[in-house]
Amino acid sequence: MARGRKIYEGKAKILYEGPEPGTIIQYFKDDATANNAEKRAVLDGKGVLNNRISELIFTRLAGIGLPTHFIKRLNMREQLIKQAEIIPLEVVCRNVAAGSIAKRLGLEEGTQLPRSLIEFYYKKDELGDPLVTEEHIGAFNWASPQEVDDMISMTLRINDFLAGMFAAIGIKLIDFKVEYGRHFEGDTVRVILADEISPDCCRLWDMETNEKMDKDRFRRDMGGITEAYSEVARRLGIIKENEAGSGADIVSIGGDK
Amino acid sequence: MARGRKIYEGKAKILYEGPEPGTIIQYFKDDATANNAEKRAVLDGKGVLNNRISELIFTRLAGIGLPTHFIKRLNMREQLIKQAEIIPLEVVCRNVAAGSIAKRLGLEEGTQLPRSLIEFYYKKDELGDPLVTEEHIGAFNWASPQEVDDMISMTLRINDFLAGMFAAIGIKLIDFKVEYGRHFEGDTVRVILADEISPDCCRLWDMETNEKMDKDRFRRDMGGITEAYSEVARRLGIIKENEAGSGADIVSIGGDK
Repeated sequence: MARGRKIYEGKAKILYEGPEPGTIIQYFKDDATANNAEKRAVLDGKGVLNNRISELIFTRLAGIGLPTHFIKRLNMREQLIKQAEIIPLEVVCRNVAAGSIAKRLGLEEGTQLPRSLIEFYYKKDELGDPLVTEEHIGAFNWASPQEVDDMISMTLRINDFLAGMFAAIGIKLIDFKVEYGRHFEGDTVRVILADEISPDCCRLWDMETNEKMDKDRFRRDMGGITEAYSEVARRLGIIKENEAGSGADIVSIGGDK
Repeated sequence: MARGRKIYEGKAKILYEGPEPGTIIQYFKDDATANNAEKRAVLDGKGVLNNRISELIFTRLAGIGLPTHFIKRLNMREQLIKQAEIIPLEVVCRNVAAGSIAKRLGLEEGTQLPRSLIEFYYKKDELGDPLVTEEHIGAFNWASPQEVDDMISMTLRINDFLAGMFAAIGIKLIDFKVEYGRHFEGDTVRVILADEISPDCCRLWDMETNEKMDKDRFRRDMGGITEAYSEVARRLGIIKENEAGSGADIVSIGGDK
């Protein structure tokens, strides 16, 4: 499908104008960044894996009635999505303490939280995506109270669904980050799930070994990143048993055109 | 009044057992700290000024029906207060961007906020008192939802009252920090205002010159700290016109025993 003009290039994805008004092509790069882009690398095949994993998850979430921006996967690295006005918040849902919350609140990494926690971070690279409260969101009008409520209830549903889905394949969902957008359809606007859900924005630990199967392997220089992402894809049934392994293998998987 | 056993020594105050069960003596030190106690100094007379300023404010707040821990001032540096179980949260109310919010959200210091903002910080020196959300407060059971609601509504009342009081003497209330405690009386528990309200925990700018009349003078090495605190006390009518000036003068003011 012919891509239109480049609209936006982020750290891990590029957005192009889609073939029809109101559509966008989302391209998954192999670039990995951490610490607000202080650390950078190119990981062969990561974009291909995330495109496939995110496709599967968004399709399944649509199956439980959750509105998303996903229309269809176009090829190995691209998906067609609905245009949406991105709400400038990263919505994080945590089940187990890891990463910034462990440091911020002095919790040992791996501690089960008393309950699933939702946090909002203001999407602003220059500020390092700071934690914000509903007070800040309201005062600066980043989202309306109704939109905040919608994001919270959708995020909790996603958490339950993903926790179940990953538990079925021996993976513990520690936490994840999602983003939402406003989708305009005629006179109505509604909040829909946008961006992606992949090991780039989840913490996934093997249930038996506690081995990390996510971007923390990159953040913490642990190596084996595309191998871990491939293993997630393999367990999800996206790539076949004998295809799991190096990133190079993965680029050629599946029936992509 | 005979002090009992020392119960707690903080950065700016010491608590001693009071003369009767359920009472405590709060002693105001001259010590100043900033940046989580990385910067320290002794400012002659600061404790005396804060004791007087906080007495005045707590007494006036009681006058509008706000429950506080304050019973009476005992002498230059001590007040008698009700024993309360301190809720481990610093409640900050902001009218104008200054300090951490300016840095965190990229706002120019001095920007009027769209509305008064309430923030909660977890009182934990080792962690640098991190910003927390109501999600964290609920999950870790630092305060009940009812207590959070009580703290928010009391803090908003305090904000309105203080804004009016300071406006009347040519001072703009930029922000302030308060703390609350649980006061047990028979079978009932209620949230009461605790700690102190003084230029140590407010940002106060002269309305005409925007000159800082608060602890930022210390944090930012601007000097003239006790002079600024004295000026606040003078405008509040606590010390007389001809007494305002150096910290040394202030120590001997008033009818203290």
